[in-house]
Amino acid sequence: MVATAAFLVIGDEILSGKTKDRNIGTLADALTMVGIDLTEVRVVADRTDAIVSAVNALRAANSYVFTSGGIGPTHDDITADSIAEAFGVGIAVDPRAYKLLSDWYDATGRNMNAARERMTRLPDGAELIDNPVSIAPGFRIGNVFVMAGVPSIFSAMLESVLPTLDGGEPLAVEIVPFSCGEGDLAGELADIATAHPTVSVGSYPKMVDGAFTTEIVLRSRDREALDAASAAAHKLRASLADKPPSA
Amino acid sequence: MVATAAFLVIGDEILSGKTKDRNIGTLADALTMVGIDLTEVRVVADRTDAIVSAVNALRAANSYVFTSGGIGPTHDDITADSIAEAFGVGIAVDPRAYKLLSDWYDATGRNMNAARERMTRLPDGAELIDNPVSIAPGFRIGNVFVMAGVPSIFSAMLESVLPTLDGGEPLAVEIVPFSCGEGDLAGELADIATAHPTVSVGSYPKMVDGAFTTEIVLRSRDREALDAASAAAHKLRASLADKPPSA
Repeated sequence: MVATAAFLVIGDEILSGKTKDRNIGTLADALTMVGIDLTEVRVVADRTDAIVSAVNALRAANSYVFTSGGIGPTHDDITADSIAEAFGVGIAVDPRAYKLLSDWYDATGRNMNAARERMTRLPDGAELIDNPVSIAPGFRIGNVFVMAGVPSIFSAMLESVLPTLDGGEPLAVEIVPFSCGEGDLAGELADIATAHPTVSVGSYPKMVDGAFTTEIVLRSRDREALDAASAAAHKLRASLADKPPSA
Repeated sequence: MVATAAFLVIGDEILSGKTKDRNIGTLADALTMVGIDLTEVRVVADRTDAIVSAVNALRAANSYVFTSGGIGPTHDDITADSIAEAFGVGIAVDPRAYKLLSDWYDATGRNMNAARERMTRLPDGAELIDNPVSIAPGFRIGNVFVMAGVPSIFSAMLESVLPTLDGGEPLAVEIVPFSCGEGDLAGELADIATAHPTVSVGSYPKMVDGAFTTEIVLRSRDREALDAASAAAHKLRASLADKPPSA
């Protein structure tokens, strides 16, 4: 049974276009490396009902759920409260988180105020996720990992979480680049996919200077089948190279 | 009643991290400009059941749904079939799409083959979306706009679709940059949000060279309320500038 994950991006700023998300690609790369299949991503607004229903749908369907955004000190940071509501538990200042933050503010000559205390409120039963960048922690509850939206902090939290995940054999990957468009190889490619059912055969067109090229991406946990499919793709590529170019 | 939209990104390559999505930001920017609220984005794999259930959930809840990806000629391009299944209609070669493509292949010295003909299969009742880049059209059925995943083609299709959408008054936006972190302004900012209920008050931390700054983003369709909230934010900014710096 392969472990699966979903990612919930929380933030009006992504949906308005003001901020361009960078965490989806970061998480996708990291999970692929540790053999966990990212099955779905959702981006929702800073609205409690949207967050609660997405979290509950995603955590029921996946081994792990990651969230980004909405754990800061301002009034529009409603993620921790929404997660508590999704799990049907209370939320309160966590003494461990409070000590981490107040020690840090003391050390850096700042004061703990009501806004900063807000960042230490965690759902009952949550475990802290380390934040080496700006100290205010993320948290894990059940199979849900709640992390910051600022990309440098998201990445740092992810680093500390990754070793705790139960991954699998990473998919082995072979990429075969074709200089033609998909229309010239689709028929034979479908035959390769059919002949190697344990290999996922993806076809990704790219447009460069007005002409299409195609990358064929082969993925499998079965190394032998992957090698056979890759050999077939390379053979197809050689046969197409003998024909006049077309896109 | 403000028009809303959802975006469904279809593609294993985004979920594996192989390709980094660029269309979410493009669509978010465009919809904000024409006064349509993007309420949700989902990224799903190239699996019929995942596409069908996401399309049906999103089209029921929004004025418009946009999709990207999976409309090429290869075996893993299953979007058109999945959309037909979602709408419970048949799918067949569309004579208009067929003529467009076969004329173009004739003109460019290529031949229509079974793979390319696959790109002319549309759900019954679909209308074509123009593709000035590589001719193979997208399509609209009901409130769902099905477009290509390659960013240059996605953008071109979006350009041709935008004038047909029923938008509203675009949200007016004011951005007030603060040189401090969120923890120094959160309390007063919440008061501003409470005092101006028709203005959406967002707070976005940024980390630059290890120090936090904050952008306050005010959005409203009510210009007068926006100006009042903006004046209050600028006043707060001036009062904080008198204090010693802190993050």
